[in-house]
Amino acid sequence: MTDLALQLQSQTGVRVLWVTCNLFAHPRYMNGAATNPDCHVLAYAGAQLKKGLDTAQKLGAQNFVFWGGREGFLTIHNTDVAAELKHMANFFKMAVKKIGLKCQFLIEPKPKEPCKHQYDYEAVSVIGFLKYYGLEYDFKLNIEPNHTTLAGHSYEHDVVMASAFGMLGSVDSNTGSPDLGWDTDQFPMDIRNATLVMKTIIEQGGLQPGGLNFDAKVRRESTDLEDLFIAHIGAMDTFARGLRNAVRIIEDGIIPGMVKDRYSSFSHGIWQKVEEGSASLEEMEDFIKQNGEPKVTSGKQEKYESIFNHYI
Amino acid sequence: MTDLALQLQSQTGVRVLWVTCNLFAHPRYMNGAATNPDCHVLAYAGAQLKKGLDTAQKLGAQNFVFWGGREGFLTIHNTDVAAELKHMANFFKMAVKKIGLKCQFLIEPKPKEPCKHQYDYEAVSVIGFLKYYGLEYDFKLNIEPNHTTLAGHSYEHDVVMASAFGMLGSVDSNTGSPDLGWDTDQFPMDIRNATLVMKTIIEQGGLQPGGLNFDAKVRRESTDLEDLFIAHIGAMDTFARGLRNAVRIIEDGIIPGMVKDRYSSFSHGIWQKVEEGSASLEEMEDFIKQNGEPKVTSGKQEKYESIFNHYI
Amino acid sequence: MTDLALQLQSQTGVRVLWVTCNLFAHPRYMNGAATNPDCHVLAYAGAQLKKGLDTAQKLGAQNFVFWGGREGFLTIHNTDVAAELKHMANFFKMAVKKIGLKCQFLIEPKPKEPCKHQYDYEAVSVIGFLKYYGLEYDFKLNIEPNHTTLAGHSYEHDVVMASAFGMLGSVDSNTGSPDLGWDTDQFPMDIRNATLVMKTIIEQGGLQPGGLNFDAKVRRESTDLEDLFIAHIGAMDTFARGLRNAVRIIEDGIIPGMVKDRYSSFSHGIWQKVEEGSASLEEMEDFIKQNGEPKVTSGKQEKYESIFNHYI
Amino acid sequence: MTDLALQLQSQTGVRVLWVTCNLFAHPRYMNGAATNPDCHVLAYAGAQLKKGLDTAQKLGAQNFVFWGGREGFLTIHNTDVAAELKHMANFFKMAVKKIGLKCQFLIEPKPKEPCKHQYDYEAVSVIGFLKYYGLEYDFKLNIEPNHTTLAGHSYEHDVVMASAFGMLGSVDSNTGSPDLGWDTDQFPMDIRNATLVMKTIIEQGGLQPGGLNFDAKVRRESTDLEDLFIAHIGAMDTFARGLRNAVRIIEDGIIPGMVKDRYSSFSHGIWQKVEEGSASLEEMEDFIKQNGEPKVTSGKQEKYESIFNHYI
Repeated sequence: MTDLALQLQSQTGVRVLWVTCNLFAHPRYMNGAATNPDCHVLAYAGAQLKKGLDTAQKLGAQNFVFWGGREGFLTIHNTDVAAELKHMANFFKMAVKKIGLKCQFLIEPKPKEPCKHQYDYEAVSVIGFLKYYGLEYDFKLNIEPNHTTLAGHSYEHDVVMASAFGMLGSVDSNTGSPDLGWDTDQFPMDIRNATLVMKTIIEQGGLQPGGLNFDAKVRRESTDLEDLFIAHIGAMDTFARGLRNAVRIIEDGIIPGMVKDRYSSFSHGIWQKVEEGSASLEEMEDFIKQNGEPKVTSGKQEKYESIFNHYI
Repeated sequence: MTDLALQLQSQTGVRVLWVTCNLFAHPRYMNGAATNPDCHVLAYAGAQLKKGLDTAQKLGAQNFVFWGGREGFLTIHNTDVAAELKHMANFFKMAVKKIGLKCQFLIEPKPKEPCKHQYDYEAVSVIGFLKYYGLEYDFKLNIEPNHTTLAGHSYEHDVVMASAFGMLGSVDSNTGSPDLGWDTDQFPMDIRNATLVMKTIIEQGGLQPGGLNFDAKVRRESTDLEDLFIAHIGAMDTFARGLRNAVRIIEDGIIPGMVKDRYSSFSHGIWQKVEEGSASLEEMEDFIKQNGEPKVTSGKQEKYESIFNHYI
Repeated sequence: MTDLALQLQSQTGVRVLWVTCNLFAHPRYMNGAATNPDCHVLAYAGAQLKKGLDTAQKLGAQNFVFWGGREGFLTIHNTDVAAELKHMANFFKMAVKKIGLKCQFLIEPKPKEPCKHQYDYEAVSVIGFLKYYGLEYDFKLNIEPNHTTLAGHSYEHDVVMASAFGMLGSVDSNTGSPDLGWDTDQFPMDIRNATLVMKTIIEQGGLQPGGLNFDAKVRRESTDLEDLFIAHIGAMDTFARGLRNAVRIIEDGIIPGMVKDRYSSFSHGIWQKVEEGSASLEEMEDFIKQNGEPKVTSGKQEKYESIFNHYI
Repeated sequence: MTDLALQLQSQTGVRVLWVTCNLFAHPRYMNGAATNPDCHVLAYAGAQLKKGLDTAQKLGAQNFVFWGGREGFLTIHNTDVAAELKHMANFFKMAVKKIGLKCQFLIEPKPKEPCKHQYDYEAVSVIGFLKYYGLEYDFKLNIEPNHTTLAGHSYEHDVVMASAFGMLGSVDSNTGSPDLGWDTDQFPMDIRNATLVMKTIIEQGGLQPGGLNFDAKVRRESTDLEDLFIAHIGAMDTFARGLRNAVRIIEDGIIPGMVKDRYSSFSHGIWQKVEEGSASLEEMEDFIKQNGEPKVTSGKQEKYESIFNHYI
């Protein structure tokens, strides 16, 4: 079962056990696993998935990650997108129907590489797929930030968005190079980025049963075993500093308070109806007829950035 | 009502009337319209939207396009994403509740510009948003391909994806420069791209009540009025050639036939259960135990590309 | 000598023999060959280069291509850029001093991959390097257009720029995917791009002793031997159509004539002094004092694009 | 003379006076100033440049920056690149010939925007242009890092490269957003980036007569005057922290020492001949015949990054 990566790790006291299903390494899946035009290949992926799920069950895995490295297309000319999306959804449904399994299913978005285009493009498009096929209660997202940057977003973007949709299940704490167009899986060393990720995780009350996963490798030009230790220590320190910074930001309450004030106008009157979704355009028009033009307020980006820098 | 663009045009015999709601030009919407942290601004947007919808109704508009040019954020530091997404959804719900309106609502995805990040990032992420808030039956997508390329996709990608999800309502037939990172709104002159777009439109049975909309402008360095005529003629010719090519591709049936064959294995036996979503992993495993390793088949990308070139 | 690729091919009647020196495959060159911080590695590269040049000489090679796949850095933290540039220049000087060799040296620019940053970033920056170290008379450029797109340029850009500087020696006629950030080495199938490349080659009077080199491979998902034939035929047809189109564009003289007219004002009077570089700001000022504000003229991009499409 | 921006500022004790020549704002320069196909426009640019240089002289300007915002093309179809490059070179030669002027000429590279392609693409390609036309002794570079990121490089790249070529004259200390494709001119708030820039400046012995220039503006969504103060203070603090970090990195000598050791093998024996450029391939071959395969050494990127983080 060379196609099944197994990851065990302990972090933040809690023991977290992962099983990741990467059905892409084998040439058999070159045209996709669940989205392969040949149902025989889909069947093979299903058989391997069953084995993976059985293994996960035996190991008492708490998380099962799907990364659809070949679920997409290299050219639109030969691809029936509608058919492939349905096959992928039905493939996931088979996993959901698997009896006795208790672990959290996770999908890891990635926009491209090895495919030209992957269906799990970025966080919100995966949520769109899951909602469209009624899978949103059975899956959460495992966000890998260097996939996020490949999709044209900032490092923290998909972590924030997945969390906003209540779908953030786990984080691959690695990084890419924003000036490169491929997945470098570097060890994360940017304290600013780590701070923003940890802030989001704290604000949503943690990741259990998920966690932070170093899905990272040393650079191509590394040969010393020592590098691997240094890389893990340096990256762990980076996220530890990020956690400390995030805790201080939240406990000080300055930035959270500024954000709370920024949205405070929605807390009363007809604005609660807007919050609840029961307001009408007529009410909006009446309000404006009485109150006229709003005052334009600054977003104060530079102030937020300057305060944020005090925590770095 | 300077914020409301009005577009009338006639194409392919059918009269199509558009009203586009671009609540972004005015500084008032600098921090968003429906997603503004100040509910007073959201109210103003609502009042303008009501006026826009009334106008659309009077004009017998068949399409009403929302382009959320400022519905997003410039920095995550000052933004409550969850709150803004809910406000945007509730804003759209107000539009849906508007009595007596018969036109098709359309959302036009754009990943960025003027915002650093816009919530309507690309086709599938917009579908995700609509599904999440139960708006998918009231809205379709108006795809502008140079927004598609800004999101890191190929020109035709969002047209194809929106269509695969049954959500393609209309197309802004303009183009960008893949080597530029902003929206150039050029007149489309690439016959290959026009062919792929028209092929998708024909395959889904047209766009009614939507259509092709030249949301394009001449280049910055254009000053002669003549340029505007030439640009429209050249772009119209490009899409006319694209339409002719697409018709020939479909009528010849060579490429469609190759694609049909590629997926033909799903038409019988347990594979119909996979199609229906009633198959199980156990069935997949049994099949593989009996039939073993699948034969790897080539995607034949270069063959498709070569045949496609015969139609250009 | 596994690090030395050998390419023989016949094209446009003329027999062209290539030897390409890719000192990057071996882990030994992981930190660079000519730019390696360890002079022992540089020496090994030099020894291999000598062997390569001897082989080229025996074979009567007409072109010798240097692609510095690892001549650059993965992180600036550990890199002495000035030292590495000098070592690379001196490495090339050793090649130039090699006695008895009659073939054209070519440098193939590539911005990144496998390195994060390669010194041979794009055409004009390579010309800058060659001029800075006095190597401009001993080297020309071998342009690979999918490296050009990786550097943020349009497909034809580096072919055009290298030619404008009189440094275009050869062309790798392959393509990339502008929406991907890595080197796909696809077979070129875009007729527009092929037309622009062939037009430039004709206008500079050909590439001898260089030529067009299919440095391309079938897609990852290809397994049939047949694909390789189809790919070569399809790509060759694409460039053949590009050549035909380019010839017609030049022979018709419509576009060349429009360009010639556009610059015609420089052909007489003090403008010849501007051409020669002997004009002064005082003369410019005097001219404006007499003639005042110039008339703004349109660039007519859409007209050029529309006419160009008639040749596709 | 609305086309001539004037900037006065005091920094690091030294009074630095700038005059920037941005011949792009006026529609007259829409098709370029020095590279305009109409020599009448080039003359107008020359007349304005003369005025600018006279003003600079009167003011005792120490730096004169050329930013060729329109010196490039929007489409290759209508452009004679060779002619435009020569005209631009000859335009600069007129400036050089201007009598009595004592200030440092600076070219500010930018890859695109407003043009699709600008000739001053990035640091090394500008150096290539200057060398090609014999202007390298009369000009240095003014690097704006958000232009650097637009060209596909890391923030610090062009500062480092310009310095390595001995051509770094000044720095626009602003920033862009790596996930956006246009020039945002944000106030720099990233301490890591500021540290790398200041380290390079210290290592080359400062920028005199150049300096750090806040060519930055508050975000689009800013309206409060207060923001402008906060932005300047925050950005100044960022560079002050960058300067402090850089000084500590250099004084501690740990990272500089590691880099020095990395290249130490070149300091003796035949390697000095490599340094001087007098070595031969035969000598390299002899060395390898005696010493065989080199030992592969790790680049230790993660170690450098971890140590660097201790200074942030």
